[in-house]
Amino acid sequence: MKNQLVHLAELYQKTRQKTMLLVEPLEVEDFVIQTSIDVSPIKWHLAHCSWFFEEFVLKELKKNTPVYLKNNYNYIFNSYYYSKGDFWKKGVRGNLSRPLLKDIMSHRNMLDEYMHELFQSHELNQNILKLIEIGIHHEMQHQELILMDIKKNFSLSPLEIKYFEDTNLSKIDINNEKYKFHHYEPGLVDVGNNQLNEFFYDNETPSHKSFIQPFSISNRLVTNREYLEFVQDNGYKNFEFWHSDAWDWLKADQIEHPLYWKLQDGLFTQFTLYGKLDLDLDQPVSHISYYEASAFAEWSSARLPTEQEWEYVCSITSNESKENFMEQEIYEATIYEKGQQITGLRGNLWEWTKSDYSSYPGYKKPKGSLKEYNSKFMCQQYVLRGGSCVTPKNHYRDTYRNFYYPFQNWMYSGIRLAKDC
Amino acid sequence: MKNQLVHLAELYQKTRQKTMLLVEPLEVEDFVIQTSIDVSPIKWHLAHCSWFFEEFVLKELKKNTPVYLKNNYNYIFNSYYYSKGDFWKKGVRGNLSRPLLKDIMSHRNMLDEYMHELFQSHELNQNILKLIEIGIHHEMQHQELILMDIKKNFSLSPLEIKYFEDTNLSKIDINNEKYKFHHYEPGLVDVGNNQLNEFFYDNETPSHKSFIQPFSISNRLVTNREYLEFVQDNGYKNFEFWHSDAWDWLKADQIEHPLYWKLQDGLFTQFTLYGKLDLDLDQPVSHISYYEASAFAEWSSARLPTEQEWEYVCSITSNESKENFMEQEIYEATIYEKGQQITGLRGNLWEWTKSDYSSYPGYKKPKGSLKEYNSKFMCQQYVLRGGSCVTPKNHYRDTYRNFYYPFQNWMYSGIRLAKDC
Amino acid sequence: MKNQLVHLAELYQKTRQKTMLLVEPLEVEDFVIQTSIDVSPIKWHLAHCSWFFEEFVLKELKKNTPVYLKNNYNYIFNSYYYSKGDFWKKGVRGNLSRPLLKDIMSHRNMLDEYMHELFQSHELNQNILKLIEIGIHHEMQHQELILMDIKKNFSLSPLEIKYFEDTNLSKIDINNEKYKFHHYEPGLVDVGNNQLNEFFYDNETPSHKSFIQPFSISNRLVTNREYLEFVQDNGYKNFEFWHSDAWDWLKADQIEHPLYWKLQDGLFTQFTLYGKLDLDLDQPVSHISYYEASAFAEWSSARLPTEQEWEYVCSITSNESKENFMEQEIYEATIYEKGQQITGLRGNLWEWTKSDYSSYPGYKKPKGSLKEYNSKFMCQQYVLRGGSCVTPKNHYRDTYRNFYYPFQNWMYSGIRLAKDC
Amino acid sequence: MKNQLVHLAELYQKTRQKTMLLVEPLEVEDFVIQTSIDVSPIKWHLAHCSWFFEEFVLKELKKNTPVYLKNNYNYIFNSYYYSKGDFWKKGVRGNLSRPLLKDIMSHRNMLDEYMHELFQSHELNQNILKLIEIGIHHEMQHQELILMDIKKNFSLSPLEIKYFEDTNLSKIDINNEKYKFHHYEPGLVDVGNNQLNEFFYDNETPSHKSFIQPFSISNRLVTNREYLEFVQDNGYKNFEFWHSDAWDWLKADQIEHPLYWKLQDGLFTQFTLYGKLDLDLDQPVSHISYYEASAFAEWSSARLPTEQEWEYVCSITSNESKENFMEQEIYEATIYEKGQQITGLRGNLWEWTKSDYSSYPGYKKPKGSLKEYNSKFMCQQYVLRGGSCVTPKNHYRDTYRNFYYPFQNWMYSGIRLAKDC
Repeated sequence: MKNQLVHLAELYQKTRQKTMLLVEPLEVEDFVIQTSIDVSPIKWHLAHCSWFFEEFVLKELKKNTPVYLKNNYNYIFNSYYYSKGDFWKKGVRGNLSRPLLKDIMSHRNMLDEYMHELFQSHELNQNILKLIEIGIHHEMQHQELILMDIKKNFSLSPLEIKYFEDTNLSKIDINNEKYKFHHYEPGLVDVGNNQLNEFFYDNETPSHKSFIQPFSISNRLVTNREYLEFVQDNGYKNFEFWHSDAWDWLKADQIEHPLYWKLQDGLFTQFTLYGKLDLDLDQPVSHISYYEASAFAEWSSARLPTEQEWEYVCSITSNESKENFMEQEIYEATIYEKGQQITGLRGNLWEWTKSDYSSYPGYKKPKGSLKEYNSKFMCQQYVLRGGSCVTPKNHYRDTYRNFYYPFQNWMYSGIRLAKDC
Repeated sequence: MKNQLVHLAELYQKTRQKTMLLVEPLEVEDFVIQTSIDVSPIKWHLAHCSWFFEEFVLKELKKNTPVYLKNNYNYIFNSYYYSKGDFWKKGVRGNLSRPLLKDIMSHRNMLDEYMHELFQSHELNQNILKLIEIGIHHEMQHQELILMDIKKNFSLSPLEIKYFEDTNLSKIDINNEKYKFHHYEPGLVDVGNNQLNEFFYDNETPSHKSFIQPFSISNRLVTNREYLEFVQDNGYKNFEFWHSDAWDWLKADQIEHPLYWKLQDGLFTQFTLYGKLDLDLDQPVSHISYYEASAFAEWSSARLPTEQEWEYVCSITSNESKENFMEQEIYEATIYEKGQQITGLRGNLWEWTKSDYSSYPGYKKPKGSLKEYNSKFMCQQYVLRGGSCVTPKNHYRDTYRNFYYPFQNWMYSGIRLAKDC
Repeated sequence: MKNQLVHLAELYQKTRQKTMLLVEPLEVEDFVIQTSIDVSPIKWHLAHCSWFFEEFVLKELKKNTPVYLKNNYNYIFNSYYYSKGDFWKKGVRGNLSRPLLKDIMSHRNMLDEYMHELFQSHELNQNILKLIEIGIHHEMQHQELILMDIKKNFSLSPLEIKYFEDTNLSKIDINNEKYKFHHYEPGLVDVGNNQLNEFFYDNETPSHKSFIQPFSISNRLVTNREYLEFVQDNGYKNFEFWHSDAWDWLKADQIEHPLYWKLQDGLFTQFTLYGKLDLDLDQPVSHISYYEASAFAEWSSARLPTEQEWEYVCSITSNESKENFMEQEIYEATIYEKGQQITGLRGNLWEWTKSDYSSYPGYKKPKGSLKEYNSKFMCQQYVLRGGSCVTPKNHYRDTYRNFYYPFQNWMYSGIRLAKDC
Repeated sequence: MKNQLVHLAELYQKTRQKTMLLVEPLEVEDFVIQTSIDVSPIKWHLAHCSWFFEEFVLKELKKNTPVYLKNNYNYIFNSYYYSKGDFWKKGVRGNLSRPLLKDIMSHRNMLDEYMHELFQSHELNQNILKLIEIGIHHEMQHQELILMDIKKNFSLSPLEIKYFEDTNLSKIDINNEKYKFHHYEPGLVDVGNNQLNEFFYDNETPSHKSFIQPFSISNRLVTNREYLEFVQDNGYKNFEFWHSDAWDWLKADQIEHPLYWKLQDGLFTQFTLYGKLDLDLDQPVSHISYYEASAFAEWSSARLPTEQEWEYVCSITSNESKENFMEQEIYEATIYEKGQQITGLRGNLWEWTKSDYSSYPGYKKPKGSLKEYNSKFMCQQYVLRGGSCVTPKNHYRDTYRNFYYPFQNWMYSGIRLAKDC
């Protein structure tokens, strides 16, 4: 347990520091705005992560020190835990100028010092350590959200603003090699997490058998070039490829291409954290909704993989490709190197599956407030797998189940095709 | 083929006549109104069913006789087939007083005579017969919708109006016997339809294997008595039982009980096609949304069955209970007789499953316009199984997959519980 | 008083019969629909007029006979009188198929017989007679609304339906003579109604002095030809002519021409109670909103008259033009005969004034429920004067103040220009 | 003209400095938020005022120096001048974190230096001086808006935040003296501005005669005590006092008292720029909508004055009361001293009139873009008179016509009663 404690203390410190590094390029004003109901003000993310430690760890220890639980801070920084009391509505988080950024920052420091002392003390039992671990992974999730939200906020400005001045993006010729399908035999496969030493969420359990039909899956993500073909083939004008709801969505919001694409003088640009760039055709297409991923698959005479298929392929695939998680500091999906068998299953982009986000057979909800962490969202959302270029590597697992509504598209999501055999 | 033709001709005639019988109690005004976006004017249903035959059968035969394809009738009575051209928006079907009911009726007669001649002729190949069969089943589906929509329309009137003057409902004492769970072993089971002689929809295919974990399922539907306990235990006031979206739905629409219940002087009544009745506590609870079914299951420390579990149980269960399809002319879920093992799997009420409505492995969409019949709705809806007291018996199959959005509740839907073992 | 009673009895009978004549061309289905929140189902109009007599006259007489006050009829047919209890929301009147048209009709007959007896009896004092008179004028107002609503309902049908088969409209060459402005000197003028023998509404009182600056007013209404020039001069594309709110309205509803105009193959048609007709360029432009009337005036370097100016000009102008009220049974604005000095001040079309609908100096609200008839609407509406081709002649007075919101355009409204001197 | 130039240069400098003083208590985050569509981010106000000078003055001088007209700044800081090009939608001004506050501030300094040089030069003709004068008054208007918007923003925070730490408010006993009505005789009065030496807006012209009926007007504004009586007499529960639209507004927004009142433990508090204070019953009631002002008047068996009546009374009333404009730095309506004849006609609170905001007889719109300053808003708004405790004294005139929609209530508005005689 001592090692575990040291490890956790280090992970805590590293994670908290990383969050600070991520927001370094921002100005105070950038921390305040909320440009749509999906995103949150960056200063809210910062405070909410601290609130989580206060509410779930410190309160559990019956410490008198919590700061955010005083005043109305609990009301403001509780995201959606009904068991933690009433909370400020998500859609109007951007209405709050207070608490000020500097106060949120100094509270972070205060909390970190407090946690530091806690790690030195002998008060931490397994239950508390578990809660701290969840708190750390919770903050990692918000690191990804912070980058997603900054991108969305900056993209909407009529001024051409950038999060990073210079791009780390490099370009490799892939000779325009077509994706290939790999075939898999039918059979009973293992799904879900049963690693005792690893951190995982309740929604990945229990580990169980699932029967898979024969299928094939493509060796890489769909590229901008391939997606552009779909767009230019009137993909967004032809109802045949779209779900009924998707078609209504297209019409209502006048959608004609992916979220961050923009047509200028006949060519598409793409908004990135490096500002507006020419669309790199060899890059995987990103910020794709489930609606769009499904329509593209239909146009390609293919389908999306199920999450069971995806996990099975992942379980027998070594990590051949160069990694692209948050730690690589690329923050965009990267282009492919020729000749790889399966690329990008891990990192790069979250990959849409056709599976709805539902409980596994035998699933048991956690007790207490953490019941609200995952299970109450098991309705009308779809599963994405594999992590992305803005996901902390430490946060990633092959059994990780991310989930979004089919119309959402501000996350780093892409398309891998599958087929029935 | 001759027998097949005779059979189909009879089924056509019987089905068309049944539709007329169903609407007999209505006055002209009742055919016109549309009280919400989910329902359609009854006269629209009548004309749309005829349009379907004209558009899919007569047009295929290149006959010059179609009536509804003239003028703007195609535009009005096309429901949602983009491949058949632009159509009048669903939500404003009730804005159209024309064509008049009498014209729709006389057109029905004209079509029936025409179809009669067609059946006598030698022009019908297998493809056309298949289309006619779909047209007949399509009309059966609308028979169910007609009863659902009449109930919804009548329920919203501040006047106490009834579709039937006298109730066929009888009451049997069930001694308040608690539902029991039957256990099933894990294993690979067959799912989907492969009956060559039976009519079925594309979404029931292909027949395939699925692995099922050990589970148990209750021997009967949940009763009003049991659901009332949930309501009285503050089930609608406690977020713990509800999906996040469901809770927002409750709050937005101020929902505190099932759709057709009404609290008067401390007691609940229930709106039926026989008007407002006292809530019969031994009757299965009906007109339940997926949100409510899931919340009730959660409150009961159980869950909803998957559609694979349901179909498996059904496949090994003979039809022990008294039937309650449309033909019984009861039009309400019936109460249970004591001592039955599994009741109501077939008929009575559609049973919510926890399975999202998605394509089966190896599914192929039909060619042409019928592609739009089922597959484009495979997004964010959930599967219901088993037919109901307003489903024509002929239309029912054990592999039938009905589907609705989780908030919808005007169909005859109920709850059967399942458990992991 | 005897004469008065005889006169009133006749007026009652004549008015009630006229209402029946107006709806004669309709089919049952046409009585049920409500295509927008502004219009009401025609059968609702019929029942509401009867309800008014029951509620305001019979109830006052403490008669036990009222029919509509039983059941929930009062709830359904009360339009907006909070003092008469809660009522069914206006926007969903079209959701009610019941009571049936035939029941509303037979109730009308029952009421008429009852009123007939009442007129024969000796029970009617001045107060009751006053209430009956208001009830009659109330029904006349609804006659106009019935025609307005039929036109709106029919216009929205994708089928080309007509209220009247044949048009009474004739065409006279006006040699395209430009409208002329007549000048009036400044001074104190009388405004409002002080005729003791005439029926009038409370909002026309008290008669009072108003000071008018020098102004001029045009000799006739603006024609379709003139309005078409405005449209073709990009009038609907140029913000300069429009109020800020009007411009938002144009953009939101994508409005590019008057309500009933439709561009087909480069030419405008116009929907009328006779169906779709070619736009008659010599006819006064009709179904114009305040927004459009103001913008047209701005484009014409003119303005709308104030209601004081309008009433003053009317008071010194004899009725030179041919009359065009409901009694002429033309039901459309008529074209002008050459050489007339001032035409159409009375009948033809309601003429927008620039005056907001507000109380006159010294105005006293009526006591009781009739307080709700006019005064509670004195906010954000604008005054129209002069009656129209669907206004019963008997209902018209020179001091009559009609009022609508600036975006409304389904009434028979037109434009007369004025100028400062 | 030299004097005029010196005067204007001083006024410019004083006004620009005052704006800076007003926002001194704010933190960066407070400049960014926009809590409703009515308010704007404070940093937007600052930049927009500079933009106005650039766009209307510098551009007119064909100077190459403008800063804000570069990039997309014109697009962002143009409020509503269609003649100045397309603009960023008002409702999402709070979505823009950039340009940063510090950049807006340094641009202000740059502009001020530039304007300083301009005042020293000999380039300024009468036309330019006029435009500069409008720019200065425009900024004064925004000073008032800045205080209104800060109050609204702060009031919505769940944290108890204050703009000023300490209150300047003092309390004087008024012995609860009832307001009195002063009578005025009928006659022709002068309305509108004809002062050649004074600055005024186009909507105050031309000066003209208006005939006024006999009326009386109360000697002071309605107090919180009096308004509280109305609230406690179920004023907000009784439809009788309210316009039809007002009643719908009450119901839709569940309004039960004035905007900044809050019921806590049976007593009302009031949100101010000094934070939440006990409701001072002797203070004039403020932040009242036209709907509420009209309803209170109705409850009081009185009415609101017309703007002509108000201006006439003002014109013959010397400024007896202690002044309460922005310069007094009280920023709240002040309580009354006993024995004054007419108090608060000037300053304290804007007083609702019953007059709709419309053009005066003979009104001519300005040429060019300034046409959009006032005239396009002359629809469905009502006039307020008299200035307020947040209006710069220099900006006030007795003929000043302020205007708001009847539901708006975040301005410093109060009630003075009038009566017909």
